[in-house]
Amino acid sequence: MKIKYELLKEEKNCKARLGRIKTNYGEVDTPMFMPVGTRAAVKGLTTDQVKECGSGVILANTYHLWLRPGEDIVNEAGGLHKFMNYNGPILTDSGGFQVFSLAKNKKKDITEEGVHFKSHIDGKKLLLTPEKSIEIQNKLDSDIAMSFDECPPASADYQYLKNSIERTLRWAKRGKDVHSNPNQALFGIVQGGPHEDLRRFSAEETVKMDFDGYSIGGVANDGESKDDMYKAIDFSVPYLPKDKLRYLMGVGEPIDILEGVIRGVDIFDCVLPTRIARHGQAFTRHGKINLNNAKYARDFTTVDDTCDCYTCKHYTKGYIRHLITVGESLGGSLLSIHNIRFLIKLTEEIREAIKEDRLLEYKENFISEYTKK
Amino acid sequence: MKIKYELLKEEKNCKARLGRIKTNYGEVDTPMFMPVGTRAAVKGLTTDQVKECGSGVILANTYHLWLRPGEDIVNEAGGLHKFMNYNGPILTDSGGFQVFSLAKNKKKDITEEGVHFKSHIDGKKLLLTPEKSIEIQNKLDSDIAMSFDECPPASADYQYLKNSIERTLRWAKRGKDVHSNPNQALFGIVQGGPHEDLRRFSAEETVKMDFDGYSIGGVANDGESKDDMYKAIDFSVPYLPKDKLRYLMGVGEPIDILEGVIRGVDIFDCVLPTRIARHGQAFTRHGKINLNNAKYARDFTTVDDTCDCYTCKHYTKGYIRHLITVGESLGGSLLSIHNIRFLIKLTEEIREAIKEDRLLEYKENFISEYTKK
Repeated sequence: MKIKYELLKEEKNCKARLGRIKTNYGEVDTPMFMPVGTRAAVKGLTTDQVKECGSGVILANTYHLWLRPGEDIVNEAGGLHKFMNYNGPILTDSGGFQVFSLAKNKKKDITEEGVHFKSHIDGKKLLLTPEKSIEIQNKLDSDIAMSFDECPPASADYQYLKNSIERTLRWAKRGKDVHSNPNQALFGIVQGGPHEDLRRFSAEETVKMDFDGYSIGGVANDGESKDDMYKAIDFSVPYLPKDKLRYLMGVGEPIDILEGVIRGVDIFDCVLPTRIARHGQAFTRHGKINLNNAKYARDFTTVDDTCDCYTCKHYTKGYIRHLITVGESLGGSLLSIHNIRFLIKLTEEIREAIKEDRLLEYKENFISEYTKK
Repeated sequence: MKIKYELLKEEKNCKARLGRIKTNYGEVDTPMFMPVGTRAAVKGLTTDQVKECGSGVILANTYHLWLRPGEDIVNEAGGLHKFMNYNGPILTDSGGFQVFSLAKNKKKDITEEGVHFKSHIDGKKLLLTPEKSIEIQNKLDSDIAMSFDECPPASADYQYLKNSIERTLRWAKRGKDVHSNPNQALFGIVQGGPHEDLRRFSAEETVKMDFDGYSIGGVANDGESKDDMYKAIDFSVPYLPKDKLRYLMGVGEPIDILEGVIRGVDIFDCVLPTRIARHGQAFTRHGKINLNNAKYARDFTTVDDTCDCYTCKHYTKGYIRHLITVGESLGGSLLSIHNIRFLIKLTEEIREAIKEDRLLEYKENFISEYTKK
């Protein structure tokens, strides 16, 4: 069966929603943060370690798995869940974002057929089309697939965006027409930059195609401002149906998650918690800290004394700083566990706050503590 | 208290011994393989993952911890156990081997005082002496410390080795005189290359100083042959007391562990299982396999179907090959778990075989299966 979203409660004082997703791999609650397992692995962590962070849905990248090991190998393994040993729901992206951001020398040729580009690994000429993206995702056998969309840069002008949205709508239709995995939901993607009329047009036309859920895209490319992100959400959400999931793609800063939820978003993903971890950075209630800082060398307290993650139960800032400083990969893994748990715990607290209609108050308190110097 | 070794049983048909070590961190049985946590971390693994492999004593490198983070920081953290979160016994080496193998440009100046060399990290001039090595290890607060010895190359001639042994004996005495940690055992080291008279001289003179245990060194430098290794053991063991632990330093090939046990060795350490793991190699009952080999891309069986490790319970060769191929560090971590467990399980089976006086038969069967083409 396909995933099924159930709206449990709406917050009284904002657009936040409490929901539940039924999947073939158990039920998960929303709002939710999804850790990213780019190449069928959340970097440096076993799937048990990811689960121990409280993960529900995790994300894997179609582009990367298409190139290596190839969707046929994943399919022969019995699909992505078996291949990577994750006994929970998995979402795959369309590959579009990576094509636009990773193509060799960032060169690509966008045609009506699809996107021609060269592999970032070996320079091989490749073509990704809406049909190919869906075919790959069907074979990967994720629980939620994404339509193939164009991801225009933040600097794109109005007319370019308008044409791009129209093509993305045609691509969405083509992808939907070939989608054939009965256990896989397919989401449409709303684009339109910070423009109210374009977001509305994109949302309304996408919703007409009746997807299983809707993503808000174009908010996490290089160059978008926070203000543009909030506009993109505000101008999209009113046109999305209440009984379907809403996914804000590529967003994982704690404050952005809060701002997204308040505007009506259900699920988020981002490489941020694992990427900053490998560089020695950790989320805490009092903002991000950088363990490369010499002041942590003799600090034998945990990363965040309010945190219940494996890392905070067993390891100290001084030890993790040592690992990061000498280049031991365990340092990045331990901070990844902490950072992922931090975001998941944030969404757990958000859900509690929604239940009691006190999310706006929770947000004020969180931001005040997080940004206090 | 210091560790206490108890000899439980001698094999009837060879020199193998079954023993038990009482430590401040629990009892552990010998023969035993010790995983290496070079810089206070077994590469890529949490201490729980190491424990789950069945680890008893683990090893950490004095040289590396002296340079970073420095023994004073580890001491302030409450010692190595607390610093790295390992609730089991820890052995530290003397730093000697790393000084000889890692010194910048391999240049060093060996004087009676100690060894002058330049840091492999920043080229800083350093001096490691017998007293300094013991002082560092005292602060690290390991359960077992090593005397500082010279590690001459395999190519060293007889007269050089003889002079070197005499200096190592003087260094052992100097280290013992300053050793001051009441909870830490101190081992002497037997050198002498493949020469019967030198090994005997080194062993007898070292034993006269009455150490808490004895190491056999000079068998895992570059260039020693297997034959030299077996000679080194055969020529040393007869002069070591039965009521003390015997440690063969730097040896971790499965067959070498078997050959060492049969010759009377109790404990072993080696970076081999973790180092080959990071390069995609795994021990199996049928010899080492290299997962970089394309034939494993579609092999969705476990690494070794007789293995009970976490990796073999959850992951396939095809998936681990994918991780290794794309450069995901999780691949090396999963194979490290398997390879460490493989060697620890080997020593568990060795202990069972000693109990039943069938170790020689076990060895023949193991080698026959391990080397069959």
